[in-house]
Amino acid sequence: SRTIRLAVVPGDGIGQEVVAEGLKVLGAVLPADVKLETTEYDLGARRYHRTGETLPDNVLAELKAFDAILLGAIGDPSVPSGVLERGLLLKLRFAFDHHINLRPGRLFPGVESPLAGQPEIDFVVVREGTEGPYVGNGGSLRTGTPHEVATEVSLNTAYGIERVVRDAYRRAQARPRKKLTLVHKNNVLVHAGHLWSRIFAEVGQEFPEVTTDYLHVDAATIFFVTQPERFDVIVTDNLFGDILTDLAAAVTGGIGLAASGNINPSGEFPSMFEPVHGSAPDIAGQGKADPTATVLSVAMLLEHLGYAAEAAKVEAAVAADLAERTGAARSTSQVGDALAGRVSG
Amino acid sequence: SRTIRLAVVPGDGIGQEVVAEGLKVLGAVLPADVKLETTEYDLGARRYHRTGETLPDNVLAELKAFDAILLGAIGDPSVPSGVLERGLLLKLRFAFDHHINLRPGRLFPGVESPLAGQPEIDFVVVREGTEGPYVGNGGSLRTGTPHEVATEVSLNTAYGIERVVRDAYRRAQARPRKKLTLVHKNNVLVHAGHLWSRIFAEVGQEFPEVTTDYLHVDAATIFFVTQPERFDVIVTDNLFGDILTDLAAAVTGGIGLAASGNINPSGEFPSMFEPVHGSAPDIAGQGKADPTATVLSVAMLLEHLGYAAEAAKVEAAVAADLAERTGAARSTSQVGDALAGRVSG
Ligand SMILES: CC(C)[C@H](C(=O)O)[C@@H](O)C(=O)O
Ligand SMILES: CC(C)[C@H](C(=O)O)[C@@H](O)C(=O)O
Repeated sequence: SRTIRLAVVPGDGIGQEVVAEGLKVLGAVLPADVKLETTEYDLGARRYHRTGETLPDNVLAELKAFDAILLGAIGDPSVPSGVLERGLLLKLRFAFDHHINLRPGRLFPGVESPLAGQPEIDFVVVREGTEGPYVGNGGSLRTGTPHEVATEVSLNTAYGIERVVRDAYRRAQARPRKKLTLVHKNNVLVHAGHLWSRIFAEVGQEFPEVTTDYLHVDAATIFFVTQPERFDVIVTDNLFGDILTDLAAAVTGGIGLAASGNINPSGEFPSMFEPVHGSAPDIAGQGKADPTATVLSVAMLLEHLGYAAEAAKVEAAVAADLAERTGAARSTSQVGDALAGRVSG
Repeated sequence: SRTIRLAVVPGDGIGQEVVAEGLKVLGAVLPADVKLETTEYDLGARRYHRTGETLPDNVLAELKAFDAILLGAIGDPSVPSGVLERGLLLKLRFAFDHHINLRPGRLFPGVESPLAGQPEIDFVVVREGTEGPYVGNGGSLRTGTPHEVATEVSLNTAYGIERVVRDAYRRAQARPRKKLTLVHKNNVLVHAGHLWSRIFAEVGQEFPEVTTDYLHVDAATIFFVTQPERFDVIVTDNLFGDILTDLAAAVTGGIGLAASGNINPSGEFPSMFEPVHGSAPDIAGQGKADPTATVLSVAMLLEHLGYAAEAAKVEAAVAADLAERTGAARSTSQVGDALAGRVSG
């Protein structure tokens, strides 16, 4: 009998509620001979206020031993902006070398897009997860004075770009349309941009069947709203990926449905799955949060761990649930129950 | 009698065609006692191929003496990405200290938005124009090898941020809703982001009537498509402003209508007005380009030079033209003729 050792980091705000439903569905879909062992870690705003810690070294070391991590949401207005994001969420992504930040953008049947005409949307953004402007390589001089200067350095390596670009080509190759779009801003950020473009062209030699395309990030946002059906696989840097995937969530019916995987394909470190949405403190604890994004992240987790059939079952359950939504408000746990019911049925 | 000394840089692709219509409308709207003196400068891809020059020092020195610059579009696929953008367009913006990059986002009556429900959209983005990731402060090591490392440095100064933030507050103060939103990513780009947030709060003390708001850039893109009516004035950095204003153009009916002003409020250097769209080489020379964005940029130019009544006339002409568009295709010059006719009527 197999075992999945899962670390669970509910985090802040609605994180707790949505993660509970994700685990409910995960438990329901797993075959009887698979044992699910979960260990919950109390990280986030509460821990920070209690101990001043964001991600202690011993916790980081423990987390390393798990098969995967399920994360709810990080962030609270009571903590200065950046402390938990950099000290916990990004620390995990960087420490575990999550260089593939995978974010599907799919408009499910029955879900209303804010776009007129309800276009067909089914793409995936492969966002680089360990480089670019996210490296935390910045500083400030004469801080707090009228003469302050602050810098942020975007670091980009051929090594780091090549691995994410190759991953994106492989995904494009495996999809029916076989189309890959590079998004950057190589007419302004010429050094980073030309490196991305060079590697994109070089790796493309290995994938003659994949059609390629380049868009500046500003132009890409236009197509996200005027012609989202043109996209199949998109590969882009950490910051552009952050921006584009929120926009993708918006046009596919909202951040309540957007799933993500922070993936280390080598398996050297556990991959981490999390909804794209934040901790939404305004609705926390009220049972109002939609757990669907977390459940779809659980599907990505299953896929990553080799449970493709179970992943498909979860996705199908979500698709069916979305198609049949009547508009009547359901609580977080009612949605979770419905989805758990569908996958175990 | 007064004189406007205008430098005209048609640039590449459709630049020539749309600028001709902009000048047509400008000529038609100016009072009889105002003399318009235009000097055309041949800059862009043709010049670059002929001489290797993008913006020679003597041209830059000459341009300095004008009251304003009207620019069409820069960029051509025959020139490596970045050469004209950095060597001409951004060089002008930086050399003339165009720190206020003003970009209205307005959905005119009769114009179709790709957003369902045709929301009311009327905001203005005040994009910083001389700092941030656009400074060109980057480089690469082991260029062209598998060990290449490329950097891009975002430079941000209290001085540079304060002047654009104060300008944005003034604009918010002068508008009926008096609302100002700061957009950045201060939970990740903590040094630059905290500097922006600090200055934003400090300058806000001078404007007690202005309601303020902060959004991370990723969240801002969501609201641009789900709730664009929430925005009044937005202030943001150079790169985020680039991205958000293309998205703004998309949701307000397309890049064919989006105007911009690169403004140096001190008057030390000429300000420059240009449509947000690019050179669109695929339709260049065919009379298909919509000159409306250029004509609206001319309205901003008039406003900047103190011709407020004429600016309003041009805007009203555009609004009337848009409201009465039947869908029948008109050529670039037909649109220009129609607008010139309206303003001189
Ligand atoms: C919370 C924040 C650090 C994070 C990011 O910027 O990556 C979030 O926006 C996301 O997209 O997962
Ligand atoms: C052409 C390019 C350099 C420019 C920019 O990035 O500012 C354009 O996108 C714009 O928005 O005016």
